[in-house]
Amino acid sequence: MMWDDGLSTYAERLAASVTQRQSRLCVGLDPLPERIEGDLADWLRRVIDETADVAAAYKPNIAFFEAIGVAGYELLFDLRDWVPADIPLILDAKRGDIADTAERYAQAYFEGMRMDAVTVNPLLGRDSIAPFLRHPSRGVYLLAYTSNPGAADFLVGDDPERPLWRSILALEAWGRTQPGTLGFVAGLTAQAAGCFSSLPDCPILIPGLGAQGGEAAALAALRGRRAAWLVNVSRSLLYPAAGAERAVLARQFRDQINAVTGAPEAERE
Amino acid sequence: MMWDDGLSTYAERLAASVTQRQSRLCVGLDPLPERIEGDLADWLRRVIDETADVAAAYKPNIAFFEAIGVAGYELLFDLRDWVPADIPLILDAKRGDIADTAERYAQAYFEGMRMDAVTVNPLLGRDSIAPFLRHPSRGVYLLAYTSNPGAADFLVGDDPERPLWRSILALEAWGRTQPGTLGFVAGLTAQAAGCFSSLPDCPILIPGLGAQGGEAAALAALRGRRAAWLVNVSRSLLYPAAGAERAVLARQFRDQINAVTGAPEAERE
Repeated sequence: MMWDDGLSTYAERLAASVTQRQSRLCVGLDPLPERIEGDLADWLRRVIDETADVAAAYKPNIAFFEAIGVAGYELLFDLRDWVPADIPLILDAKRGDIADTAERYAQAYFEGMRMDAVTVNPLLGRDSIAPFLRHPSRGVYLLAYTSNPGAADFLVGDDPERPLWRSILALEAWGRTQPGTLGFVAGLTAQAAGCFSSLPDCPILIPGLGAQGGEAAALAALRGRRAAWLVNVSRSLLYPAAGAERAVLARQFRDQINAVTGAPEAERE
Repeated sequence: MMWDDGLSTYAERLAASVTQRQSRLCVGLDPLPERIEGDLADWLRRVIDETADVAAAYKPNIAFFEAIGVAGYELLFDLRDWVPADIPLILDAKRGDIADTAERYAQAYFEGMRMDAVTVNPLLGRDSIAPFLRHPSRGVYLLAYTSNPGAADFLVGDDPERPLWRSILALEAWGRTQPGTLGFVAGLTAQAAGCFSSLPDCPILIPGLGAQGGEAAALAALRGRRAAWLVNVSRSLLYPAAGAERAVLARQFRDQINAVTGAPEAERE
């Protein structure tokens, strides 16, 4: 599969990967040098090898690479060679800046690092999002309804009539007029999952399963949803307890998600 | 002056630089390889040498370095050695992520790159800001009231009774309880400048003078303001028209700002 052929959208390629692997599992790549023995590049390749049969996507979190310094940043450019070509790579960067700066970020991540999608912070509005969506075969996930304590400050807010997350989700209609694919990041809570019933076609990226404490049961509202959506697991898969095998854990997470929402095969379009 | 002594706050060090240079000019560092002849490191050192007598701060925009690739990213680690020790370095990164990811960003920028301050996107709330403010001698500028077209989507919004920017500025009181210094990013418009009359003590960073089209006259509301605030100029100083000298332009921008708001000396505390 060619990533730059412009013939397939990010949504299509993501759906193909989900169906192929019967999995909505996204494997987060958060390297913590203090918990890794040996070479970081070897460790990343091993994580990928052990999980690629059930990983519908990989999500490197750029902050963990940046904290390592230049050597960590450099690893981001190798990931596309290490991850099988039909599995999308989502850079978790949450960038948000205006037009020409956003263009430079898109250049860095889509061209330099060859990422397939990126997470974007929508605070500055449409001119901060459009430069990422100008890339026809790439995807953009906007932060929408997170479940961290600070979500109460702005995203969920104190006005139930006009929550900010609802204004962000309203960009979905605008996103359909853009060349790229627009999706959203939502927390692993029943409230967040429930927000998407009126948006049946957009990709959703849901972090928080495993170490972050979220329960797969919160996904019940997504049962039968046709569009490609993902649940991310990072820490509890990357740094398993003694005796646990990463490949086995990955399958368990895949099955746990499918048990709640149905296997992706039934939703094939 | 030691940057890591923990004895001086970012606000104090910034005020000292402003007073010392009689200047509120912040020089943005946006390297555009297609407009630079020769070595990028040499170019950056030359820009710094030509402007350091009137630059109260420097503001590298990380997107422009990231778009260059690993070699560009690497330059960010050298800036602290090239900029005089008493001039703060503000990394324009607009990062915004939750607790442990935010900690990794703070580690990358404050420890790895030795930046004195960073711009932060407050969308995810206080737990996305606090990890940056835990560094006592460092500064954090929150995006608050920008002047890009997309600001109408969320920050300024359609509800004049409850604009989002006002909720963001309300974090100022919380910021005073944190070890680091909290400030804000505001657009170069009279409306944005007028928002800060009730917050007389916090740093403000105002981009947009020069190539971005903003006029210094919009700063009139800040006349007599005691706290250290900065106006950033990037492109029109970095890439001057043929025959124009960067050192002369920098002084002109400094004087243009002071003409509207009064020289910093009069505001010495």
